[in-house]
Amino acid sequence: MSSAEINKNEVDIVIGALNADLTQFLTSWRPFFSGFHLIVVKDPELKEELNIPEGFDVDVYSKTDMEKVVGASNATMFSGYSCRYFGYLISKKKYIVSIDDDCVPAKDPKGFLVDAVTQHVINLENPATPLFFNTLYDPYCEGADFVRGYPFSLRSGVPCAASCGLWLNLADLDAPTQALKTEQRNTSYVDAVMTVPAKAMLPISGINIAFNRELVGPALVPALRLAGEGKVRWETLEDVWCGMCLKHISDHLGYGVKTGLPYVWRNERGDAVESLRKKWEGMKLMEKSVPFFESLKLPETALKVEDCVIELAKAVKEQLGSDDPAFTQAADAMVKWIQLWNSVNSSA
Amino acid sequence: MSSAEINKNEVDIVIGALNADLTQFLTSWRPFFSGFHLIVVKDPELKEELNIPEGFDVDVYSKTDMEKVVGASNATMFSGYSCRYFGYLISKKKYIVSIDDDCVPAKDPKGFLVDAVTQHVINLENPATPLFFNTLYDPYCEGADFVRGYPFSLRSGVPCAASCGLWLNLADLDAPTQALKTEQRNTSYVDAVMTVPAKAMLPISGINIAFNRELVGPALVPALRLAGEGKVRWETLEDVWCGMCLKHISDHLGYGVKTGLPYVWRNERGDAVESLRKKWEGMKLMEKSVPFFESLKLPETALKVEDCVIELAKAVKEQLGSDDPAFTQAADAMVKWIQLWNSVNSSA
Repeated sequence: MSSAEINKNEVDIVIGALNADLTQFLTSWRPFFSGFHLIVVKDPELKEELNIPEGFDVDVYSKTDMEKVVGASNATMFSGYSCRYFGYLISKKKYIVSIDDDCVPAKDPKGFLVDAVTQHVINLENPATPLFFNTLYDPYCEGADFVRGYPFSLRSGVPCAASCGLWLNLADLDAPTQALKTEQRNTSYVDAVMTVPAKAMLPISGINIAFNRELVGPALVPALRLAGEGKVRWETLEDVWCGMCLKHISDHLGYGVKTGLPYVWRNERGDAVESLRKKWEGMKLMEKSVPFFESLKLPETALKVEDCVIELAKAVKEQLGSDDPAFTQAADAMVKWIQLWNSVNSSA
Repeated sequence: MSSAEINKNEVDIVIGALNADLTQFLTSWRPFFSGFHLIVVKDPELKEELNIPEGFDVDVYSKTDMEKVVGASNATMFSGYSCRYFGYLISKKKYIVSIDDDCVPAKDPKGFLVDAVTQHVINLENPATPLFFNTLYDPYCEGADFVRGYPFSLRSGVPCAASCGLWLNLADLDAPTQALKTEQRNTSYVDAVMTVPAKAMLPISGINIAFNRELVGPALVPALRLAGEGKVRWETLEDVWCGMCLKHISDHLGYGVKTGLPYVWRNERGDAVESLRKKWEGMKLMEKSVPFFESLKLPETALKVEDCVIELAKAVKEQLGSDDPAFTQAADAMVKWIQLWNSVNSSA
């Protein structure tokens, strides 16, 4: 499957604009974004006018648009990195590709620029294999296959819900690691896509991600916000929490989540040493989240993604609510999100 | 960690000799086997004298040795590819590295020969991370780390039980795939080591493997043999079954299993089209094995590897015994194996 075979009408590229000047970002992505519809969502706290170069099929959404669609009281849930979720909410497409605005195309080991959009769509269009691990990675790739011992009944795979891309240069580390290892850069290009096995947990990152909106759209929920959260990725956890929800719901519904290619090249943003001065409550919240998700069992009656999110919110409130107010807020946000999703997507 | 830092006295390299002439094999591996102790186990059905080049620290075991150690009636369990297991049984070392005698060192993408022994030992000496998936692969590699969202309490990892290497050129396919895709070759060198998540099943291959014998030695058990099994890998399932046992027991005891590097270059052996004429019962047995292992829960009282194998054998007999006589034979072989292990390893 090549970029020529992708139906561009099925894809929305959602960009959360945390920087006003998108010129360098969009220019670098022009070869791969060209012909696709772009949804640019402006961080509601960003005051300056956006600078968007000519020649893109783009719709821009600002705080005013958010307030029109979800009401003024709900617009706050889309501040900072969470503004992307507004794009997920209002898209009408099958696939969403989303890349942070401080990333540019990476180069593969042969020196060619990586077409991240095409790779994400290929990952989503091919089946996933979460029920049995294939040691030679994605068995549907050209020249690959299922290895000896792989059960034949599982070789048709399951639908792929999400595709998690990776990062060269500045890796996606947390605040303490980033602050302690300011010089560390990721230079390792691992040329593989794989399905993360069912029931395995992973830290999904929102920096470079794609998903099948028709299958799991409402599962990508803006919910967990840290009190001291800034405008640098290493201080956030919203996408990691969202990823735990997404993975658990995908497992429950029999879908797969892939990780690996495509890489993007991630540039620096923010002051890592500054982050050292802040207390990083994300560490504590993750320690509590992991046993929660590990023991979580969604009821068999939860057949729709929306039901799963509501059930998950209920369990969060019951089991984690007393630990930290951030969890209660997350549970409430998840319920609110499903209400918004239903109202926006049924009125369409 | 480099090859210089490896304690060669802690490693046995076990080679199952299915071919009499090991000259090319051992010569190709000389730069990496040199200084290690080799255990060469001759397939008891192989009639010719072995041809072993000079300059290796090698002990050769034949049918006569097997009969001396385990008795004439038990020696049959070591025929064909299973002869390797005799080496696992009598070794006294902490680590075992085992590579099929039709493999030679692979080249990495830069053209350097891959030191498979050192890579296996590095994999085994570094912790594994089966409880949470790290998207940037092995976090203990130089330049790598745990990504944002990875729980801090899990960053010290768990002991690594086994290291599964991969194959360039002829991949490890099953009989039907090999026969249908005779021209297919694996050319994809994926430069990564990762831990397979807990509870995930995978088809472990015995072609290129290493394990910590002190931790999980008895779990590597020769048990499941196919009736029409030949002297080509694609017709066997003994190592895949053994791998399912090994992975399940490692999960139960809190150890990890890694996969990825090192690669070996695998040469052709056997006639794939000939295999097409045979009925491949392996397919049917795997379909029954998967739900069995998926639902298997070893009792919490099984704290030693030996106990786990015995409990597993009991469950195999009860749940799979009526499906196929191969399973009953496997269960019996597993019990026998533990008896042999205890007798050989306690008398030492």
